[in-house]
Amino acid sequence: MNKIHKKYSPGVLSLLPLYYVGWSDNILSPSEVALAAKKIQELTHLSDADKKLLKSWSDPTNPPSPELFAEWVKILKSNASHISNKEKNALSSLGIEMAKKSSGESDSIKWEDKQTRQAIMELEETLGTIPPHTLRTIFPEVNFEDKPVKVSDRTETIKKILDGDFHETSEKVRRLIQDPAFEIDYPVGKEANRKRTMTWCKEMAKQGYGSMSYPEFAGGRGNMADYIGVFSTLGFHDLSLVIKFGVQFGLFGGSIYNLGNESQQRKYLPKTGTLEIAGCFAMTETGHGSNVRELQTTATYEANTDEIIIHTPTYNDGKEYIGNAMDSTMASVFAQLIVNGKNEGVHAILVPIRNDQHQLLPGVRIEDCGYKVGLNGVDNGRIWFDQVRVPRENLLNRFGDIDQNGNYTSTIKNPARRFFTMLGTLVGGRVCVPRAGLSAAKTGLTVAINHSLKRRQFAPKPGLKETLLLDYPSHQRRLMPLLAKAYALNFGLDYLAKRYLEDKEEDVRYVETLAAGMKSYATWFTTEALQECREACGGKGYLWENRISDLKADSDIFTTFEGDNTVLMQLVAKGILSEFSQEFHDEGFRAVLRMLVNQVTTNISERNPISTRQTDHSHLIDSEFQIAAFKYREKDLLYSVSTRMRGYIKKKIDSYEAFLKCQTHMLQLADAYVERKVLTAFIKALDKMDPASREFLTPVKDLYALSALEKNRGWFLEQGYFHPNKSKAIRKAVDRLCSDLRVNAAELVAAFGVPEKCLGDIGKPPTT
Amino acid sequence: MNKIHKKYSPGVLSLLPLYYVGWSDNILSPSEVALAAKKIQELTHLSDADKKLLKSWSDPTNPPSPELFAEWVKILKSNASHISNKEKNALSSLGIEMAKKSSGESDSIKWEDKQTRQAIMELEETLGTIPPHTLRTIFPEVNFEDKPVKVSDRTETIKKILDGDFHETSEKVRRLIQDPAFEIDYPVGKEANRKRTMTWCKEMAKQGYGSMSYPEFAGGRGNMADYIGVFSTLGFHDLSLVIKFGVQFGLFGGSIYNLGNESQQRKYLPKTGTLEIAGCFAMTETGHGSNVRELQTTATYEANTDEIIIHTPTYNDGKEYIGNAMDSTMASVFAQLIVNGKNEGVHAILVPIRNDQHQLLPGVRIEDCGYKVGLNGVDNGRIWFDQVRVPRENLLNRFGDIDQNGNYTSTIKNPARRFFTMLGTLVGGRVCVPRAGLSAAKTGLTVAINHSLKRRQFAPKPGLKETLLLDYPSHQRRLMPLLAKAYALNFGLDYLAKRYLEDKEEDVRYVETLAAGMKSYATWFTTEALQECREACGGKGYLWENRISDLKADSDIFTTFEGDNTVLMQLVAKGILSEFSQEFHDEGFRAVLRMLVNQVTTNISERNPISTRQTDHSHLIDSEFQIAAFKYREKDLLYSVSTRMRGYIKKKIDSYEAFLKCQTHMLQLADAYVERKVLTAFIKALDKMDPASREFLTPVKDLYALSALEKNRGWFLEQGYFHPNKSKAIRKAVDRLCSDLRVNAAELVAAFGVPEKCLGDIGKPPTT
Repeated sequence: MNKIHKKYSPGVLSLLPLYYVGWSDNILSPSEVALAAKKIQELTHLSDADKKLLKSWSDPTNPPSPELFAEWVKILKSNASHISNKEKNALSSLGIEMAKKSSGESDSIKWEDKQTRQAIMELEETLGTIPPHTLRTIFPEVNFEDKPVKVSDRTETIKKILDGDFHETSEKVRRLIQDPAFEIDYPVGKEANRKRTMTWCKEMAKQGYGSMSYPEFAGGRGNMADYIGVFSTLGFHDLSLVIKFGVQFGLFGGSIYNLGNESQQRKYLPKTGTLEIAGCFAMTETGHGSNVRELQTTATYEANTDEIIIHTPTYNDGKEYIGNAMDSTMASVFAQLIVNGKNEGVHAILVPIRNDQHQLLPGVRIEDCGYKVGLNGVDNGRIWFDQVRVPRENLLNRFGDIDQNGNYTSTIKNPARRFFTMLGTLVGGRVCVPRAGLSAAKTGLTVAINHSLKRRQFAPKPGLKETLLLDYPSHQRRLMPLLAKAYALNFGLDYLAKRYLEDKEEDVRYVETLAAGMKSYATWFTTEALQECREACGGKGYLWENRISDLKADSDIFTTFEGDNTVLMQLVAKGILSEFSQEFHDEGFRAVLRMLVNQVTTNISERNPISTRQTDHSHLIDSEFQIAAFKYREKDLLYSVSTRMRGYIKKKIDSYEAFLKCQTHMLQLADAYVERKVLTAFIKALDKMDPASREFLTPVKDLYALSALEKNRGWFLEQGYFHPNKSKAIRKAVDRLCSDLRVNAAELVAAFGVPEKCLGDIGKPPTT
Repeated sequence: MNKIHKKYSPGVLSLLPLYYVGWSDNILSPSEVALAAKKIQELTHLSDADKKLLKSWSDPTNPPSPELFAEWVKILKSNASHISNKEKNALSSLGIEMAKKSSGESDSIKWEDKQTRQAIMELEETLGTIPPHTLRTIFPEVNFEDKPVKVSDRTETIKKILDGDFHETSEKVRRLIQDPAFEIDYPVGKEANRKRTMTWCKEMAKQGYGSMSYPEFAGGRGNMADYIGVFSTLGFHDLSLVIKFGVQFGLFGGSIYNLGNESQQRKYLPKTGTLEIAGCFAMTETGHGSNVRELQTTATYEANTDEIIIHTPTYNDGKEYIGNAMDSTMASVFAQLIVNGKNEGVHAILVPIRNDQHQLLPGVRIEDCGYKVGLNGVDNGRIWFDQVRVPRENLLNRFGDIDQNGNYTSTIKNPARRFFTMLGTLVGGRVCVPRAGLSAAKTGLTVAINHSLKRRQFAPKPGLKETLLLDYPSHQRRLMPLLAKAYALNFGLDYLAKRYLEDKEEDVRYVETLAAGMKSYATWFTTEALQECREACGGKGYLWENRISDLKADSDIFTTFEGDNTVLMQLVAKGILSEFSQEFHDEGFRAVLRMLVNQVTTNISERNPISTRQTDHSHLIDSEFQIAAFKYREKDLLYSVSTRMRGYIKKKIDSYEAFLKCQTHMLQLADAYVERKVLTAFIKALDKMDPASREFLTPVKDLYALSALEKNRGWFLEQGYFHPNKSKAIRKAVDRLCSDLRVNAAELVAAFGVPEKCLGDIGKPPTT
């Protein structure tokens, strides 16, 4: 035993833990090993013999033999037997302690030297976040995994970065939802649930939250940003409240604000903001959901009475899923406006549906949609109209009006453009919905990650502490990429909100496309994240009290409402393609194609044998590489879809059929476009941060980017953009980032700022 | 116009629709085009000039120019203008009608010739299922999509094949759940829900369903197969009933049947089968779920009273999620059995928990788990024991007993083996749970597919009929592969059940591994399928009444209970690896590795440049290719995991740590293993079918196999097993199979035999 004890010099011992961990699972990349070897040659506390030996262990192409490695294990075990658990918890201090113990009395002093300690610690840092629990095998008595659970001052800084421009409003809402009046308990039956939601909505209206985005004459502050901040933050709490709030103040109020004239706004908005008028947004019909243009409800102008007659032709043309339908006294009804026998297309008309005693008005029939799997706090209903008459003034007439002579007038002559302009003003919903969904996902991730930092599963041996869930690689793989994506979406959705709030004329189409894409991409994420979190929490995740499955059930419909995601993604693709639309014929189109070809060819130059094979970690975590790959995918898909479409059109296949043939291809293009936008937003946000935050969040960006590339690696391999080895290296890099970030997991979820009251029992942060 | 009219001879016209469709989107593979060209040369009704022209259009390497293609469009339009919509609905009849119209009076007779018609139809069949709606562009007035909605006599045959050995029982249960007493309405609040579930359970017990698997002396028929059939079929109906039924008769009753002696069976089973004794299965604890061996509840034998004392040490050691806990009078409690101060490991003990008045017995504390997101018809509870005494006879003593002298005895000396043997007898749950989950998924798929055959979205042009949802390629992509996987799992789970029911001594480990894998693979599928179905039905899918989202919420926990899927998949991987366990050292291990290397090398011979590039459709739909690819993935993963494990062990990294390092790798291996088993079962089932059914279901098998390969294409490309072009060809083959099978979609779901009462409003089959 003594022989082994003394086999290595104190200098070598001081670095042995680093070598052990570094070589234990090829955790370090060849370039990192080479870098470390270089640094070691500069260390002054090592003898020449030490350096020579260490150098022989530092050849990336010639890893230590299993026998040598096994020897290290023995030496570490025997030399560390008298060292305290605390010192074993960091590789550098363990090394120094071993060196100290092994030195003679006099020599041992040099190991107290601050400079030596500093040099070794720096070396450890150069190698990045090496998980110290890799030493668990050798020292099973040390709880390596307990160390990293901490929430530092930094958390508050990151939280402010995530809240962004909405920080102040978000903090206000965080306080609000922690008020005892907003306590979340289980409401039995939909009636109790709806009542509770309405009570909360009224409380918020009383405090002025309802009218924030309305003009000052309506009691508001004309500040849409505040509305966005409120809506987002409510997503931590209860989604029925979010939706009821959104329907009343955003959709119903928004239809008056965006589609009405000022006198209509003055007449209705003040009472809408206070909930004196409860209103609903009656657009969707049973027979027509996504296809709004073909709604069947009619609004026929009758000249002699100067009235508009609202009518539902058949049972299947009734309005369906209309939120707030059971509580409302008024509806904003979307119908085909017919004036002088001519259909002028879909317009919105304000229709009173109940009287002061909350009785239905004549001709109005409303049925409860009944139970849904979630959002039972929202009163969705079905509405049919039988020749219901309203005065001409009830037409929301900003974009199309009936004048005193009974003639239809509009500043937008083209009916299609008019239709899309009207709908375009309602894009705010698509800006907001994914934000609330993201908050729900953040809540789920906070619960699942905090749980996994407390909950243990199997033990290495009987009598030893069981392993924390988040120390299982499968659990890291399950949760960490989702955590990274939540961060990425935070910045992506902020970018969308910014462009939306800037409200520039020339941005209208761009914002519509972006909103459609972000809404889909983000709400699909919410569904995926909450599903994974539920399962990651096992039985606990199934209990209502632990929030996740409740949020999952409530948010599931987010992928459908405010535009079905699949339909929206087709809009996105069409939006991208129509940037070239005026050139979509003959020469012009060819010019565009040529431009695209050039772009793709430039990208293809990255497809040379060296770059497709470059597998070094430092290359993979380079934003330039990442964004180039994202762009390549987007441009290549754009190019190939365009070419296909063009080919069909040349074959005289009509455009609808051609679109069907390219449909799944177009959906991929849309996905690539949105994904690139999100990564760009993350990178730009990092650029603007203080250096410490940037350093802290850069690996999160890397995990997002590389997970996305890993997900699409089949495609990249097919294109030859990745060599197989590069694809494998990306997988490995994702593994490594998952493991690296596990150390910061508690802090990363704390920075979401989900109030503890919204986390259920298992979701509370682990105590250090 | 006339010029175009007459441009082609009647012979050419007769085949023009086939050429148009065949070339319209490269639907046909080169080899199919070549085959068609060859057949055409044999047609007697064509002139030599016709043959020459058609031959020039049949060069796979030289497709018709866009200009030529556009000409065909014009000619088809003008020649078909007087042909009825009905005739346009099939390519062959359209061609013949055109030829007839274009011929002179006398000549037209030859087109009435049966042989000619027969020849053209045969040609059409040779080319496989060409979707006739490809002609939609040319003839927008024809409702091509309406034609394929049909349910033929074949449906009943396929249903019987799917039901397999359980057909008779399944039919009985189908009738039962359509009884008015089993009407599904929405139960408000968990109390009402639980009451309803209990009523149904009692009704089933009364009819003898509860005791089916018990011995005759317990009122049963000793027929586990019947129990499996009942459990599976109930999955179409309400999952709370499935689970309550399973807990009472399967888990509680099963613990007595499998772990008790005959006198215990005689004493308790008859009353269990009739529900006179309601019992629960108290295994899981708050602190220990997957890690059953470390349960903390103690069962201490006290010699002087000859009693066993059941005790919960701390709050966190209480039993949790225990189904039937609120209704039970007795619990089968799993606890550490301590005899003469020695812990003999986990054993089950029958513990009365309530008296005749349903009051808790002294020392027993039970709390309601409260609301869950689903399964609120099941009364899950938490149970704590405070020094509760039961007689020694209450120990379920088949595998371990306390004799009259107070000494512990067991026929299985090794405690670990004893533990796993006891748990192994409970494998029936893992055979049954995925079957009920599959039934739920089948219900969801039936609803979503039937809905998509009725619901329309956008129209090509105003005034034309809107397109059916299932005619969108994205919708086919969404649902058809899931439909195929449901079929595959049907046969996979039947194979598992068969091996389980054969109950061979030498199969015990194999069945355990297979059950763990199938349970995970199938229940993950249920979650995925129902999630997709929900979204595919939009708002309708979110309503409780349409079943999907309710089944989703109820079945979500299937991935957790009866063994957490991730933990089970690790078991599978360990099971596969332990086939080599006795040789897991030195030479022996090396021999095994050598064998594996040989196997993989054999497989690698398939990785030669030709086979990796082979992209022909006929190659891709060849079972031999498919199974070889599945096997390659499995063996390669087995080889690489083994090698890695071996490397760690050589480095003296202990096995627990080594396992953690390989964890995600092992999960992949398990997935590959199960997937291969499922495909094999499907292929074997096809072999045994009548030819018509085999022909009908073979493309379903192909879609399952190719979807799985597509999902894993990143991995296959990394290994060089697929050339990029092959990977692309597989994607395209999946597209094509989705489109081909769309024609049979209505029939494929009808064959599941989900009673209409279980389908909600939107799920009813379309009427032809």
